[in-house]
Amino acid sequence: MTSSKALLVICDGMGDRVEREFGDETPLGVAKTPNFDRLASSGSVGLMDPIGPGIRPGSDYATTALLGYDPRVCYTGRGGLEAAGAGMTLKPGDVAFRCNFSTVDDKLTVIDRRAGRIEHGTSEIAEAVRKIRPKGVKGLEVDFQATIAHRGVLVLKARGLSRMVSDVDPHETGVKILRSEPLDDSTSAKRTAAAVNDFVMQSFKILKNHPVNIKRVQEGKRPANIILPRGAGTLPPFTPLRELYGLNVACIAAVALVKGVSRVAGAELVPVEGATGGLDTNYDGKAYAALKALGNHDLVILHVKATDVASHDGDFKKKASVIEKIDMAVGKILPSLDAASTYVIVTADHSTPISVRDHSGNPVPLLINGPGVPKSGVSKFSENAASRGNLGRLHGLDLMPIIADYLDKAKKLGF
Amino acid sequence: MTSSKALLVICDGMGDRVEREFGDETPLGVAKTPNFDRLASSGSVGLMDPIGPGIRPGSDYATTALLGYDPRVCYTGRGGLEAAGAGMTLKPGDVAFRCNFSTVDDKLTVIDRRAGRIEHGTSEIAEAVRKIRPKGVKGLEVDFQATIAHRGVLVLKARGLSRMVSDVDPHETGVKILRSEPLDDSTSAKRTAAAVNDFVMQSFKILKNHPVNIKRVQEGKRPANIILPRGAGTLPPFTPLRELYGLNVACIAAVALVKGVSRVAGAELVPVEGATGGLDTNYDGKAYAALKALGNHDLVILHVKATDVASHDGDFKKKASVIEKIDMAVGKILPSLDAASTYVIVTADHSTPISVRDHSGNPVPLLINGPGVPKSGVSKFSENAASRGNLGRLHGLDLMPIIADYLDKAKKLGF
Repeated sequence: MTSSKALLVICDGMGDRVEREFGDETPLGVAKTPNFDRLASSGSVGLMDPIGPGIRPGSDYATTALLGYDPRVCYTGRGGLEAAGAGMTLKPGDVAFRCNFSTVDDKLTVIDRRAGRIEHGTSEIAEAVRKIRPKGVKGLEVDFQATIAHRGVLVLKARGLSRMVSDVDPHETGVKILRSEPLDDSTSAKRTAAAVNDFVMQSFKILKNHPVNIKRVQEGKRPANIILPRGAGTLPPFTPLRELYGLNVACIAAVALVKGVSRVAGAELVPVEGATGGLDTNYDGKAYAALKALGNHDLVILHVKATDVASHDGDFKKKASVIEKIDMAVGKILPSLDAASTYVIVTADHSTPISVRDHSGNPVPLLINGPGVPKSGVSKFSENAASRGNLGRLHGLDLMPIIADYLDKAKKLGF
Repeated sequence: MTSSKALLVICDGMGDRVEREFGDETPLGVAKTPNFDRLASSGSVGLMDPIGPGIRPGSDYATTALLGYDPRVCYTGRGGLEAAGAGMTLKPGDVAFRCNFSTVDDKLTVIDRRAGRIEHGTSEIAEAVRKIRPKGVKGLEVDFQATIAHRGVLVLKARGLSRMVSDVDPHETGVKILRSEPLDDSTSAKRTAAAVNDFVMQSFKILKNHPVNIKRVQEGKRPANIILPRGAGTLPPFTPLRELYGLNVACIAAVALVKGVSRVAGAELVPVEGATGGLDTNYDGKAYAALKALGNHDLVILHVKATDVASHDGDFKKKASVIEKIDMAVGKILPSLDAASTYVIVTADHSTPISVRDHSGNPVPLLINGPGVPKSGVSKFSENAASRGNLGRLHGLDLMPIIADYLDKAKKLGF
C-alpha cells in the first residue's frame, strides 16, 4: 500500500461575509474556481471556526490552531514565531521581538516607523546592532537579523528573561518612542524591559553615525537610526508534528509568521523564487514547489498571503481574482497527484471580510478531497455551499487530527 | 403519563469510509436495513465524533464517552474495566490486569501466548493462581478469574498500589517475557511492578506441575504454565447513571470491556445464551433480551461486536451482512415497543473502516427515534445521509445527556 500524502492549501483570510451587491455571495462564491469546485464536489465540504464561532483570530492564533496546537494554551507571543520564521535558533527562555528599522529625531520622536521604507543596507546595520550588549543582565547575548525591507528580529538570550514586557514601538509617528515596561511583577520582566530599553538607546547611539545612514542622509533619504522592538515572545512549546503523528511536513510560505509556526511545528521550509507574500506572488512557482515537496513529505502546507492582502484593501473583485489565481495554480499540479493516495485540503486560516478590512470571527470554508472521503456533490466551493456541507461545522483544532487520521498516522487513544 | 424508555443499539465499529467500488457508499450505506431506515426517516439523524473529529478511539475510550464520561479526564486503564466486566469487585486503588494463560519454555521464552487456545481447566488453574501471595506488599490480596478461553483477569488489592506499571506480556512469541517496570517515579509503581513480577514467577512455579497441565502435556497440548499480565488499570471514577440521572440501566453485551464500562456506570448486566461477541452471535436472542429488559429498566444498552469483527477482517460484504442481521433482529422487537413512550437510538462506538482494518477517527452515524424527535425524512440510514442530517455533528459525550433529556431524567443546571 502506497503511503498517503496530503496537500493543505491555506488561502490567508479567504473567508468572507456575503455582499448583497454581489448576489449575496462572497469573493470565493463568485470567483471562477473550476478546480476547487471539482475537489469540493467529489470531496467533503464544511465550515471551520479557526478558534471558535465569532472569535477573531490573529494570524498567529489561527495558524497555530490549524497546525493542531491550541493557542489558548500554548500562545507565547509573536516574537518567537517571527524569529523562527527568520531562521533564527531560539532556546526555551530566549525572548524575541519583531523590530522595525525606524527614523527618530534627536528627541526620540518618531519621524518614520519604516525609515523611508529602507530596502538596502539593513544587513550591515544588523551586523552593527548584533554587537550591542545591554547592561544589567548577566551573560546576556544578542542576536539580530534583518528580514524583509524595514523589518528585523531581535533575540535576547540569557537566563531569567520574560516575554511579559511592553513595546518600544509607539505604532505611530510624531510621538516619542515608548519605554518598554514590565507587564507583571516578576523580576525577570523588569530585567528584560531594562535590557530592551538599553538596547534601543545603544542602537540609536551606534546607528546615528553608521556609514549606511550617513550615505542615506547624503542621498536625501531617512536614516534607519534606531531599532524599535515590539511583540515580545518566546518559543511556543509545540510538540513537533513528526513526534505527535510521525508526519514529515514541508511548508511553502512567504510570510515569516507562517514560516515560523510551521518551523516550530517541525516543518521543512521550502523557499520559492518570487514568493513575495504580495498580490504579485509566484502562484505557479509555489504550486510546483508543493508538488515537488509532496515527493518526500507526508504533508505539504501551501500558504498564500495574497487573499488577505486584497481583503485588507477592501477590494472584493481583487480578492476574487486572487482566489482564481490560486485555483488555477493548484489546478496545474492536480493532474500530477496520485488520486488514489493523495488528499487535498483547501481552506483559510481565518476570515478577513471585505466589509471589515480586518480579521473577523466568521467561519472559513473547508474542503477535503481524497480516498474514502464522502462526496458532497456541491457545484461550487463557497462559504454558502460549505455551510450546508457534509462535514458539518468543525474547529481549527480538528483539522490536523482529521488529516493525520486519513494519512493513517493517528495514534489510538486507549485500546 | 407512562415513563419513557430508551433502547440504545451500539453496533461496534459500524462507522466506515466510502468505497468507490461500492458506489461511494459504506457497508451501512449498501446494507438492506428497512428497520433502521424507517427509524431514521421518522427520527433524527446526524454524525457523532466519539471523542472528537479525527481522533481514533480505542473501544475503552469510545464506550466510556458514549456512556457520558469523558475518557480524557477519567480514563484509568483497561484492566479495571475488564475486571468489572468479569464480575469482579474492585475498590478504588485496587489494580487489575488483563491476563493470558500462556506457554513458556524453561528460559521463560514465550512459545504460545494463548497456551494452545486452552478451553478447559482454566478455572482450576485460576483457583491455584488465586492463592499466590506476592512478596513485599503488606496486606496484599490477590483475586484472579478465568474469563473466556485463554483469558483471565488479575486483581491486586492493597493500599499504595499504582496502575503505572508496564506489561509482562511481550505481545509476541519467541521472545522472553518482560519484567513489569514502574512507569513513573512513585514508590507505589515500583512496589506494584515488583509484586506483578513476583506473581508471574510464582505462577510459573505453581503451574508447571499443575494437574491440568500434566494432562495437557500428556495429550500433546501446550501447557498453560504461566500467567502473563498486561493493561494495568484501576476502577474509573464514574458516578453511576442512576445517581447522575436517576436512570435504571441494563446492558446486553458479550464483550468484557463493554460489560465492564456499563457495570461501573451502574448498569445491570443481562446474560444472553449464545451471545459470543463473534459473527455467529445470537442476534435475535440479544434483541429479545433487550425487549424484556425494557420492562424494568429506563435504558437498555444493546451492544453487538460482530460489526467490528467483520471490519477488522476487512470484509465489506460481511460487514454489510452483519448490519443486516442486527437490523433484522431489532426489527423483530420494534412492533412490541410502545412507540408513544420508547426512544430507539442506533449508532456505533467508533468507525472501523474496511480500508483501514482498525479504528479510525471518522465520525459515526447516529439515529434517534421517538416521541417529539424531529423527522429527518431520509430514505436510508447511512453515513452519507447522516452527514446531511438534522442532528448536525455531535460528540460522543453529548449522547447520554440527550437520552436523559428525552427520558425526562435530565437535571436542570441553575434555576
